[in-house]
Amino acid sequence: MCELMGMSANVPTDICFSFTGLMQRGGGNGPHADGWGITFYVGKGARSFHDPQPSIDSHVAQLVQQHSIKSHVVISHIRQANMGQVSVENTHPFQRELWGRHWTFAHNGQVHGYQQLSLQNYLPVGSTDSEHLFCWLLGELRCAFPKPPSDPWTTRLFLQQRMDYLHALGVSNMLLSDGEHLYCYCSTKLSWITRRAPFGEACLKDADMQVDFGTQTTPDDIVTVVATDPLTDNEQWQVMLPGSLLVLRDGKVI
Amino acid sequence: MCELMGMSANVPTDICFSFTGLMQRGGGNGPHADGWGITFYVGKGARSFHDPQPSIDSHVAQLVQQHSIKSHVVISHIRQANMGQVSVENTHPFQRELWGRHWTFAHNGQVHGYQQLSLQNYLPVGSTDSEHLFCWLLGELRCAFPKPPSDPWTTRLFLQQRMDYLHALGVSNMLLSDGEHLYCYCSTKLSWITRRAPFGEACLKDADMQVDFGTQTTPDDIVTVVATDPLTDNEQWQVMLPGSLLVLRDGKVI
Repeated sequence: MCELMGMSANVPTDICFSFTGLMQRGGGNGPHADGWGITFYVGKGARSFHDPQPSIDSHVAQLVQQHSIKSHVVISHIRQANMGQVSVENTHPFQRELWGRHWTFAHNGQVHGYQQLSLQNYLPVGSTDSEHLFCWLLGELRCAFPKPPSDPWTTRLFLQQRMDYLHALGVSNMLLSDGEHLYCYCSTKLSWITRRAPFGEACLKDADMQVDFGTQTTPDDIVTVVATDPLTDNEQWQVMLPGSLLVLRDGKVI
Repeated sequence: MCELMGMSANVPTDICFSFTGLMQRGGGNGPHADGWGITFYVGKGARSFHDPQPSIDSHVAQLVQQHSIKSHVVISHIRQANMGQVSVENTHPFQRELWGRHWTFAHNGQVHGYQQLSLQNYLPVGSTDSEHLFCWLLGELRCAFPKPPSDPWTTRLFLQQRMDYLHALGVSNMLLSDGEHLYCYCSTKLSWITRRAPFGEACLKDADMQVDFGTQTTPDDIVTVVATDPLTDNEQWQVMLPGSLLVLRDGKVI
């Protein structure tokens, strides 16, 4: 399986602390040594970094850890390949354009019979089931709504229904974003935490590192982090229920 | 205007030397301080790095210079903004999927009345004329050929015709790739050089740096580099004629 991490914030926020924890699991404290990737949204723009090397040895991962890239929405993934060779084209997150926005997707799980999900408009480049699911999901959305629905609840309900369908076919934990909303679907395992004033200290589970968020934030900041497994061991993470969808915007659960 | 650089090679080849030269022009020896980007193809996969900061000050550019990423096809761009603010979404190269391959595009020029070019299937995320042209070009290709033509000459002739049309509307130097072919269109300014055995020494024009390609290659390697302006001053670059298309594959002109 793989590990997922996402972030939504109401101010441009860096993810160095959480990313440092996640990267330890990529060939260090965890078996996810088959590549990693991260996408940062800055406004409508998306900057991605992909590396088929284990994150623990990756120069690019070191750069992302050391140089704060501030963003409103982040999606990251470390891979333990179960389908599709270790290669750049099979490294998450995947990205396609819909309605003039970049949509980004990362996935953890395995869905049997995914080849039966017929594709419209978007085709996979690599050979993972995950990219196939993403292309299917976005194709379904585009086919149902050639233009973006005026009510964001319509998109949300549509996605929930399709994600429930994938969950019924197998294990399918997903992070999906258009740069504004972060859709987090729990099929088996996903936890989240919202940090807001008064901010406290957090200690990484996977590395000897603490941060006092009080010194790095303003009182109005709201930041939610989502991960396959909690990244800190001194905070109370919320464990999501299988079959549930969490939608975040500007750091808040909506 | 902006500067373009591309590479096609028959073996995975790094672009550190040429990239070092190009990056000097991004706020150093040149005025192109409005961001830069690069895409490396490894098989069908594409790894991109985008930075809205001047390349001369960019940590990400330093990483790309220092850590050899080997690739068959590269497209890079440094930006001097004339349309669209300096932002991630306006930073070239742009990318969209067609026929199950990632297509990458970088552009130098300005096309008047580009808003009249009607878009099918692909929409721009940012506000540059360049991304609009790319979306138009790919939409035209997809509309004419819902599946990839079996004869690559068909694609080539179709692209040449559409690129000629853009050239007639203004200045439009372009690099476009599907990871296999590198299409290089000269509207006003583009030069190229093919390096093959016997390899010699090359000296950068923009930095005090030489490389002896003889020590870094095997006798069968063939590498072609394309750039807005020649990157070395001791080699014979071919200057392209306005209105001409160069198509490269495996380092060779085809």
